[in-house]
Amino acid sequence: MPAFQTVRGMRDLIGEEAQTFTYIIAKARETAMLYGYKEVITPVVEPLELLSAKSGEEIRQRMFIFKDLGDRQVALRPEFTASIARLATTALKNDPKPLRLFSVGSVYRYDEPQRGRYREFWQSNFEIMGSNRPEADAEIVLLTNSLMKGLGLQGYAFKIGHIGVVRGILSEEAVDEKTQNAILQRMDKKEYEEAFKLAPTDKCRSMLEGLLKLKGNDCFETIEKIKSYVDGYEKAKAAAENLGEILKLIVESGCPIQVVEPAFARGLEYYTGMIFEIYIPQLEIALGGGGRYDRLIELFGGESTPAVGCAHGIDRIAIALQTQKTSLGVKAGKRVFVLSINDALKIDASKIAQMLRDAGVIVESEIMGRKMGKALEDAEKRSADYAVIVGERELKEGSVVLKDLAKREQTIVSIKELSEKIKN
Amino acid sequence: MPAFQTVRGMRDLIGEEAQTFTYIIAKARETAMLYGYKEVITPVVEPLELLSAKSGEEIRQRMFIFKDLGDRQVALRPEFTASIARLATTALKNDPKPLRLFSVGSVYRYDEPQRGRYREFWQSNFEIMGSNRPEADAEIVLLTNSLMKGLGLQGYAFKIGHIGVVRGILSEEAVDEKTQNAILQRMDKKEYEEAFKLAPTDKCRSMLEGLLKLKGNDCFETIEKIKSYVDGYEKAKAAAENLGEILKLIVESGCPIQVVEPAFARGLEYYTGMIFEIYIPQLEIALGGGGRYDRLIELFGGESTPAVGCAHGIDRIAIALQTQKTSLGVKAGKRVFVLSINDALKIDASKIAQMLRDAGVIVESEIMGRKMGKALEDAEKRSADYAVIVGERELKEGSVVLKDLAKREQTIVSIKELSEKIKN
Repeated sequence: MPAFQTVRGMRDLIGEEAQTFTYIIAKARETAMLYGYKEVITPVVEPLELLSAKSGEEIRQRMFIFKDLGDRQVALRPEFTASIARLATTALKNDPKPLRLFSVGSVYRYDEPQRGRYREFWQSNFEIMGSNRPEADAEIVLLTNSLMKGLGLQGYAFKIGHIGVVRGILSEEAVDEKTQNAILQRMDKKEYEEAFKLAPTDKCRSMLEGLLKLKGNDCFETIEKIKSYVDGYEKAKAAAENLGEILKLIVESGCPIQVVEPAFARGLEYYTGMIFEIYIPQLEIALGGGGRYDRLIELFGGESTPAVGCAHGIDRIAIALQTQKTSLGVKAGKRVFVLSINDALKIDASKIAQMLRDAGVIVESEIMGRKMGKALEDAEKRSADYAVIVGERELKEGSVVLKDLAKREQTIVSIKELSEKIKN
Repeated sequence: MPAFQTVRGMRDLIGEEAQTFTYIIAKARETAMLYGYKEVITPVVEPLELLSAKSGEEIRQRMFIFKDLGDRQVALRPEFTASIARLATTALKNDPKPLRLFSVGSVYRYDEPQRGRYREFWQSNFEIMGSNRPEADAEIVLLTNSLMKGLGLQGYAFKIGHIGVVRGILSEEAVDEKTQNAILQRMDKKEYEEAFKLAPTDKCRSMLEGLLKLKGNDCFETIEKIKSYVDGYEKAKAAAENLGEILKLIVESGCPIQVVEPAFARGLEYYTGMIFEIYIPQLEIALGGGGRYDRLIELFGGESTPAVGCAHGIDRIAIALQTQKTSLGVKAGKRVFVLSINDALKIDASKIAQMLRDAGVIVESEIMGRKMGKALEDAEKRSADYAVIVGERELKEGSVVLKDLAKREQTIVSIKELSEKIKN
């Protein structure tokens, strides 16, 4: 039988890689706690109907869809928002607004695998339901900023835009929603030529082309430029003003803005307002992003509820941390190898191991029945800090041999003082 | 459009329920750390070939199987061991033995849903590869004990047996492996009559029936009884002796044993040695279990590698904690609601909120644009401890109003001292 492999596009994360993931997840959970977000755990498998109600056509075609044994059409979630929207319209329907929800877990998309793009990947997800105010948009950006800062990422910065600018122009030019979506999808992929070909008039096309050139890194100057450029397009102008309000809140609070980009589009069709992504200089792929989607809850049969949210790509953040050689700041405790000099003392060794663990010491026990020399060799290979050797003579006096494996020194230590001795 | 539901047998976990899950997972991860287990994160979706190589027929029929868009036969993992065995025979092939691996996540089985049995459920999973010694079996039981104790569960106890006793008798009676598996499967379901009907001879049947009566809660007396009962069945006797060795190690270390049961069987066909489950008095379902499986790695094309492992049911442990009304001992920090008396001060309020979060205070910001009265009403509904009110006059003097929402008292506090004041 051949050595088995993972399914194409899916990965095993081992040791340090797994540790980096759990570290990022812990930081995301801490951020959620500090901002007052309630955690929810939703299923990986969802009704296809739920997932397709929301996702854009593009994502729909990249979902893992199948029938369960009860002949139900189900799919693996391609993101969290549909599940969260379900909660907002069912179990959490009567909770006071704003509703702040956090989730973290794996999601699934059938994409061409490449570095930073996997078919199973991990996201932390934050959503606010019930506020249409720029403070809510700002909060989502600010908590992303807190998370990136808390993780120790260097030189990260936000790309920010507002889907209402392009949509405002297109609506005024009487472009139907389906065509708008098609244009935005191509713009998202930076296929601008193809996107603009879909504009119904020369004027519309030239308006869009002009927008492309307006991006800038001086936030408030760029907002003013956009506002005067879209003069006459009322909705587009209101969008630019809204973005300006949000920027005021986040720039003042120290969020680094790389670029304000009025022609910025994101893949998901449901965005209605501010959109953003976050980057570090060393990577071309976004570490996360999000935006406002005010019509989604309605789509799920709920009352009209404004909402804004974001997702952070844990796989990509892990690559970013690795690229920047960020120390995770995880304190590694002392690691101890416990063995007895003979089989008769196994139980005593086991009890001492347990006592050390209860005191918070990391203990590997000898479980291979090896002679002491072999066992100690292995302990060194595993870079244990100490070996605790349980012998008859010392045990009678309530002591054991403590061997410092780096210094190659050994002393007799009373069992009572053992854990303190090891920890200090 | 109707309110969407979850897929049958799958659940949303909200707020406290999610908190209980993450608490159990954190404890399991801590246990893994203290026992020297390396964490691995493996995909939820695995090749069907990998999963069926290992799982018993019964689990195979209850898997979520489908084809991905690349026409690959895949399935959702029904447990972790197949994925771990893959790692042991590929990426971790050359790692020094013993190999200690930990994983945690969701698994999938198409069972009839009932309390404590879901189609998506969560497990923490521990495996040791490379040791055939009773110390390894004991370690798996001991770490389960540490986890249950650490979680604060009361009155939990182990049911323990050894698959080698029944298999030893059946082999000696020339029962082929397929029939052995069929018998064990029925014994696992406590369908003893049906199980024993499959025994080829009266002698064999009566041997099995007699085993049923040998279970007892005096560990070493029970072991002696089993040993004399199976006298003449060499492999069965060796199994009982092995179980006795393991029991010595775990009983001495304080593991509570409910019952030693020689006719105990567990659903998975691959067990070859000690098997155990863990219960609390208030629940009929096991909170976890495991055992030895020495032939599995071979099955995956690796070198013959003895192995022992266990899985803990997080959904069930959550039910157990809830049933026993166990306090999670999670320290809830002070929760603060920050608002400004007018829109012009929003940015200042946002900065103060951020400063408090940086100091570890849980802060919900006002993001609804409400008047102060309404906002404070909401803060009370959310049982915040304090409201921080940012006003023009106080801000000029570097202060804010701090309102204790329980005592309904308010004082003016300097921003510098604010976080300390709130935390103490």
